[in-house]
Amino acid sequence: MKTAITPTRAENFSEWYQNLITAADLAENAPVRGCMTIKPYGWAIWELMRDEMDRRIKAQGVLNANFPLLIPIDFFNREAEHVAGFAKEAAVVTHYRLKMIEGSLAPDPESKLTEPYIIRPTSETIIGEAMSRWVQSYRDLPMKLNQWVNVMRWEMRPRMFLRTSEFNWQEGHNVFATHEEANADARKMHKLYGDYMRDVLAIPAIMGEKTPEERFAGADHTYTTEQIMQDGKALQAGTSHDLGQHFSKSFGIKYLGTDGQLHHAWTTSWGTSTRMMGGLFMTHSDDDGLVLPPMVAPYQVVIIPLVRDGNDDALNAYAEKIGDDLRAHGIRVLVDTSDMRGPDKMWKWIKRGVPLRVEIGAREMAADQITVTRRDLGKASKQTMAAAEFASVAAEMLHVMHKDMYNAAAARNATMIKNVESLDALAAALGAGEIGFFRLKYDLTLAPEFDAIMDTYKVSRRCLDDADPTYVFVAKSY
Amino acid sequence: MKTAITPTRAENFSEWYQNLITAADLAENAPVRGCMTIKPYGWAIWELMRDEMDRRIKAQGVLNANFPLLIPIDFFNREAEHVAGFAKEAAVVTHYRLKMIEGSLAPDPESKLTEPYIIRPTSETIIGEAMSRWVQSYRDLPMKLNQWVNVMRWEMRPRMFLRTSEFNWQEGHNVFATHEEANADARKMHKLYGDYMRDVLAIPAIMGEKTPEERFAGADHTYTTEQIMQDGKALQAGTSHDLGQHFSKSFGIKYLGTDGQLHHAWTTSWGTSTRMMGGLFMTHSDDDGLVLPPMVAPYQVVIIPLVRDGNDDALNAYAEKIGDDLRAHGIRVLVDTSDMRGPDKMWKWIKRGVPLRVEIGAREMAADQITVTRRDLGKASKQTMAAAEFASVAAEMLHVMHKDMYNAAAARNATMIKNVESLDALAAALGAGEIGFFRLKYDLTLAPEFDAIMDTYKVSRRCLDDADPTYVFVAKSY
Repeated sequence: MKTAITPTRAENFSEWYQNLITAADLAENAPVRGCMTIKPYGWAIWELMRDEMDRRIKAQGVLNANFPLLIPIDFFNREAEHVAGFAKEAAVVTHYRLKMIEGSLAPDPESKLTEPYIIRPTSETIIGEAMSRWVQSYRDLPMKLNQWVNVMRWEMRPRMFLRTSEFNWQEGHNVFATHEEANADARKMHKLYGDYMRDVLAIPAIMGEKTPEERFAGADHTYTTEQIMQDGKALQAGTSHDLGQHFSKSFGIKYLGTDGQLHHAWTTSWGTSTRMMGGLFMTHSDDDGLVLPPMVAPYQVVIIPLVRDGNDDALNAYAEKIGDDLRAHGIRVLVDTSDMRGPDKMWKWIKRGVPLRVEIGAREMAADQITVTRRDLGKASKQTMAAAEFASVAAEMLHVMHKDMYNAAAARNATMIKNVESLDALAAALGAGEIGFFRLKYDLTLAPEFDAIMDTYKVSRRCLDDADPTYVFVAKSY
Repeated sequence: MKTAITPTRAENFSEWYQNLITAADLAENAPVRGCMTIKPYGWAIWELMRDEMDRRIKAQGVLNANFPLLIPIDFFNREAEHVAGFAKEAAVVTHYRLKMIEGSLAPDPESKLTEPYIIRPTSETIIGEAMSRWVQSYRDLPMKLNQWVNVMRWEMRPRMFLRTSEFNWQEGHNVFATHEEANADARKMHKLYGDYMRDVLAIPAIMGEKTPEERFAGADHTYTTEQIMQDGKALQAGTSHDLGQHFSKSFGIKYLGTDGQLHHAWTTSWGTSTRMMGGLFMTHSDDDGLVLPPMVAPYQVVIIPLVRDGNDDALNAYAEKIGDDLRAHGIRVLVDTSDMRGPDKMWKWIKRGVPLRVEIGAREMAADQITVTRRDLGKASKQTMAAAEFASVAAEMLHVMHKDMYNAAAARNATMIKNVESLDALAAALGAGEIGFFRLKYDLTLAPEFDAIMDTYKVSRRCLDDADPTYVFVAKSY
């Protein structure tokens, strides 16, 4: 059977993904190493994801702010573990002026900075410095701040949405008086991410704590959401860190307690990024293109009037009327009256993953009907109904589609999780080409033989099993 | 009379402005040269400004996208005029990795880039390159794109919100088939900015075209919105450029016309930034702090329960009930039940410019009343009314306040615009310390004597007078 995307997922998942991005017009490689340009359709998805995440974050009493893009190099020297984890892959600004030299522009040698700046890879350091001034007394706590910004980490093996040198994210940074509060909040934000993935993206994520070996640089605890892609690989899509007193001690974040004494505060940080879009695409899409959960679909319904001879005012007007009825129910609708051929329009919106596709021809119009197809179920779901009925049930159809997409992903996840009792069994499964998340005793992974397995099969510990933290999940990952 | 901000505007406008920023907790200098940190209250104002601007831009059929932060240095070589205008003040990325050298971090010499990158000062070049691929046929036109991003221009004399090395903005980039369409659209976006300033910020801006000497680097026409600050200086707060074919020729943006021939397209760009916040603050604020127009006030009403002995559950509950009634009318409300003293709360929210301040004590509660004061009018506007009445008239009070603020600014503008007939008269007025916008024949400013006046008095041509473009406005500026 011919598919809109070639190769198919089964033939070559990695190439399928690249071609999906192009076919759905989401993004392209930028003329800057490792960076991408997010095109309007991709960005519209991100705006929906971002706005809903922002609402949920603000509901926690978090305030948004904006910290500088550049960080003085010296800030990274202050927190030793953090330096080791981040500084290596950073973009460095060394000059502040250009000059015409021998007919072309070059950094003006006279503008060399005595202290270079780093483009933020994450902002714990610069926000820590600000918090050392903003936090004075227990009355200032908890302090909960977030920013939506771009960050850079130089990538040698970039992959669109999953790993790009520049990416967009939200990074939250909270400060508390006690470790108990900080840890509870780090877990609360972790849960917020998991709920968001379930309720907004229809993605069932594995929720758990990172092992000590895999923690964020400078954290006491890292809580992660690990999504399972259709090829069995893990995608780390949102993390929440209990930073203990590492940053409060490095940056002097202290508060005067009710006891009249100065105490170091306890901090957390938590983030999700455009990387989550990659997870969204690789969780739900199929060999015909994108499949979008309704909550983040720029158009939840596309209406295609199947005009003959290139034009039919009555049919277009009928389509517009149906569109207006749906909009009155709060649904995002596109009526595609562009001058492409009907089948081309149909495939365009299939590839772009619009949840409900409505086709109307002269026959539908005469009977005051529509024909609707659900993107995730395809032809099998095609049905004709009265236009008025559709307007009243469309929101519910979208709601059901969300649940079905979540359940389909959860059912697939269940087949992807495999218990193994020993390192030998793990190596045998990987050697046989088995894919998915392998669940085994965490202690087993502390043996030197596990390092050899990680090297050979490119797997890593993803997280401890929340249900029984003596177990760990091991998988390949993006 | 004691004022909340010292010095007052009359005593020292520039210091007053700095202290206003601090008193209203809007922003602070960052530990990065020329950059600022926008604090939560300041950022909440920006989010309101941004979201409303975004709605208006999208209503024009513009799509948002996201282009890279870094631009290859070579891109700036392609458009000669643009280079001359921008490249000098740019931040340059020369390395992509750090290394521990003699105990501290430094750029790794082995990571030196063969071609450095510039942090975008504006994105005409990188977007032009993309459009050269995205625009193929007349069917692709018009193409209207916008992005909300951070940009950098190294500033030697930074000033918070007005001139910072990094700032946040929206930059729109449109492409058309003909010059007529491009020019009409550049003017339409210019008008959109003027309408926004009037309807959202309550600012009457002078709308006009820049003279050839003051145009954007690489534009055929630049349309500007010049706001008049309380000290008579101009603030350029939003510009729209008809770029002719400069960028379409430099970057090869061509389309196949209905005539079957390839044609260079015509492009525009248009932008507004966080700089507009500086204009907002300097237009409306007074010696007691910020005065915010209701549409961009994070809290439109603050309710202060004047509790005695630090606590009074009944009074706080009464305040919360009034707050809920107002919220039901779509008003943004803060009920301040923090444990500060009543007068301290009052001054806190005066300094932060909350439009309506409601105070309630035991007496008001007993009579089911409230006492409300308008921030722009102060004590003279204080009135007591039934709580139920207030809930029903508060939205209208905010609406009237917006109009009054606009009219007050327009009346002040009128006193600031002065006709002068000759360069001698201009020099005499400036020499006598007169402030404001001086209106004179544009031709006069082409004489060499005008250059001397610009140098001596630090004035510049702001824009031609839309009503009669043979006249130009000359003023000092931010």
